[in-house]
Amino acid sequence: MSDLTEPVDRADLVPPHDLGTGDFSLYPIDHAMVAAALEDRTVRVEWDDGHVSRFHFPWLRDNCPCCVHPYTQEQVFELAAAVHEIRPEDVLVSDVGALEVRWSGDGHASRYHPGWLREHCYSEGSRRERLLAPVLWDASTRARPDGFDWGAVVADEEVELAWLSSIRDTGCAVIHGAPLTDDAVGEIAGRIGVLRETNFGRLFDVRVDTDPVSNSNTGLELPPHTDLPTREYQPGLQLLHCLVNDVAGGLSLLVDGYRVAAELRDRSPRFYELLTTHPWDFANRSRTSDYRWRAPMIGVDSDGNWTGVRVGNWLRGPLDAPFDLVEELYEAYRAFEGLSHQARFQIRFRLEPGDCLIFDNRRLLHGRTSLGPGAGRRHLRGCYMDRDELRSRLNMLERRRRTRKVVAGQGP
Amino acid sequence: MSDLTEPVDRADLVPPHDLGTGDFSLYPIDHAMVAAALEDRTVRVEWDDGHVSRFHFPWLRDNCPCCVHPYTQEQVFELAAAVHEIRPEDVLVSDVGALEVRWSGDGHASRYHPGWLREHCYSEGSRRERLLAPVLWDASTRARPDGFDWGAVVADEEVELAWLSSIRDTGCAVIHGAPLTDDAVGEIAGRIGVLRETNFGRLFDVRVDTDPVSNSNTGLELPPHTDLPTREYQPGLQLLHCLVNDVAGGLSLLVDGYRVAAELRDRSPRFYELLTTHPWDFANRSRTSDYRWRAPMIGVDSDGNWTGVRVGNWLRGPLDAPFDLVEELYEAYRAFEGLSHQARFQIRFRLEPGDCLIFDNRRLLHGRTSLGPGAGRRHLRGCYMDRDELRSRLNMLERRRRTRKVVAGQGP
Repeated sequence: MSDLTEPVDRADLVPPHDLGTGDFSLYPIDHAMVAAALEDRTVRVEWDDGHVSRFHFPWLRDNCPCCVHPYTQEQVFELAAAVHEIRPEDVLVSDVGALEVRWSGDGHASRYHPGWLREHCYSEGSRRERLLAPVLWDASTRARPDGFDWGAVVADEEVELAWLSSIRDTGCAVIHGAPLTDDAVGEIAGRIGVLRETNFGRLFDVRVDTDPVSNSNTGLELPPHTDLPTREYQPGLQLLHCLVNDVAGGLSLLVDGYRVAAELRDRSPRFYELLTTHPWDFANRSRTSDYRWRAPMIGVDSDGNWTGVRVGNWLRGPLDAPFDLVEELYEAYRAFEGLSHQARFQIRFRLEPGDCLIFDNRRLLHGRTSLGPGAGRRHLRGCYMDRDELRSRLNMLERRRRTRKVVAGQGP
Repeated sequence: MSDLTEPVDRADLVPPHDLGTGDFSLYPIDHAMVAAALEDRTVRVEWDDGHVSRFHFPWLRDNCPCCVHPYTQEQVFELAAAVHEIRPEDVLVSDVGALEVRWSGDGHASRYHPGWLREHCYSEGSRRERLLAPVLWDASTRARPDGFDWGAVVADEEVELAWLSSIRDTGCAVIHGAPLTDDAVGEIAGRIGVLRETNFGRLFDVRVDTDPVSNSNTGLELPPHTDLPTREYQPGLQLLHCLVNDVAGGLSLLVDGYRVAAELRDRSPRFYELLTTHPWDFANRSRTSDYRWRAPMIGVDSDGNWTGVRVGNWLRGPLDAPFDLVEELYEAYRAFEGLSHQARFQIRFRLEPGDCLIFDNRRLLHGRTSLGPGAGRRHLRGCYMDRDELRSRLNMLERRRRTRKVVAGQGP
């Protein structure tokens, strides 16, 4: 296998793979274009499997793969500064199978790679196929996070891909067999991407402190919560690496916040509406910093997809809400919090030394049972990252898998 | 002046200042409570200036200042787990001027500090007074960012407060007289809070590279944009420290994105609606990482406040939108981008060595004119932080100013 840390030189590839795509990926050609036609406001493309794509003129002009900086692949053509009307003079499928568009006005010619074009088709069917929905779970469908061996992750990109896909889809995974060193959690995080330092440091320790700065550093039970709901940017991923665990209690506990949100939506649409639209106040009390943020407890984007949950009884500041909504907001909060405390939504499991739990801190609530009586010790070392580090690493692994497919497909 | 790095010991304070407040702040008592009465669903409080507050029972129980961990000040009472009905047995104003509530059921007594209570009143009028609206600007109302001397910032907390308030309100400020060292930008950031490391490193350099990873490392003009719109968490603050600048061009350029958003909203409500609700695709092309995110170009929260803008022609990936909206989305984008290119929204100024520009990267667009001909050099060194670091530092400075006021007010 060739070294895949650097992209293949396109000049070595068989046409139309040598065509630029405006990015650093190679695209397999699973379908060929059989016809292209100029319509009133779109270019219509027919594929050999019967699929039809239609691309609007500004979309095509905007994505011309040659109008990018040769090193950075960043666009240099500015649609907003275009002086000519954006309209093709003619279109055709070239002899190597690319879509060619010659633009009226400046006569510029754009050539689109068939693999790239098919992958970016925005027909309703193609968009639906690309959707990645989270796999919701509760105690009836999951007993513990998927497990992966650290040695196998390091040795095999396909195992790494399975590990990271599990975190993306289920919100959690456990690494087994991580080194019992102070830096191991940083090394695991560093394999994915850049760590997120906070006021708690680059790495932090979860163990009993005599002068705790947070309830996590006491022996108390920690009810399900998300970390740092007090921040505009609640960390997207949390890693907790177990170095010592010989206490009687201290079971780790996870709840799928999206599963609980779905339950609330089905049971009490009004409470769900309140928690998705009205901000709550969160506050991190400290002698040396004073982080506060206001946001709805359940985040939903403009497409109706969940973006995250913010939950933490002891990290809330005084609620600052319209007078007439205060009581109802409290009822909605109690309903949501009450659901997340139900055993049927919680999974509980014991972290052993060498285990590293990784979870989506904006989707999953985490907690632990009280450490229990006795002289045992429990020491976790943790850090934060953002979710797009995970996505970027997954994109890179998928890019490399795709490159292997293209290079293999054109071998002698 | 006493050392204000540690909070004053409450036991040394005159009642009711010695009352806990559930946080680490001291609250001046600008108004006294003159009466408290139990209503059907609220406790009604009258103040000596005629103001009336009404607090709902769950809000009061939730904010009981003694139900917190003694070290962390984090809540230990869980409303969601409460077994008794949340209802006061009686309420009164105590002889030291605190609100006392005795709860039915468990008979717990809560005592609320009058300064804390007044500050957290959520009557419509009180909420309106607390609103902090951004101060919108364009070239007709602002020529350049407010300037502050680094030595004065370090020596005087009131200057530091003015500096950070300017960033919060106008979105930008310039420090003059920063040391001409490689680490100075990190030191300036570190005074505010924790730096945000990205795939571009902890600190990064903006100067001409022969193998640029980004258009910013070329001599090209950079049209107005925000940095890292490709990330779920677009950095909230950017610092750019000028070490060398002897090129003919290379003027810094800023645009108030909220001002442009307001203009778009007034001129074309439909375009504004499209850009606040429909996500665009952003992509950071790179050989070693692949960051992508989808989000509306203009972010608005559930209260209708702007949360940020995402703008960068060359950082967009192929648009993945419903077929029927694609043309209109492009029109809206061109209108927004077109406005931001108009000189009437732009301020241009020259950074001199020792200047450090700090701006809100989710509100302001930044850019630069081309470096121009000749052999001159221009070297900026930059870093990112999040906006809540600024807010936390401002909260701390305000807490310390308030502590000085309380301590001075009860002197002999």
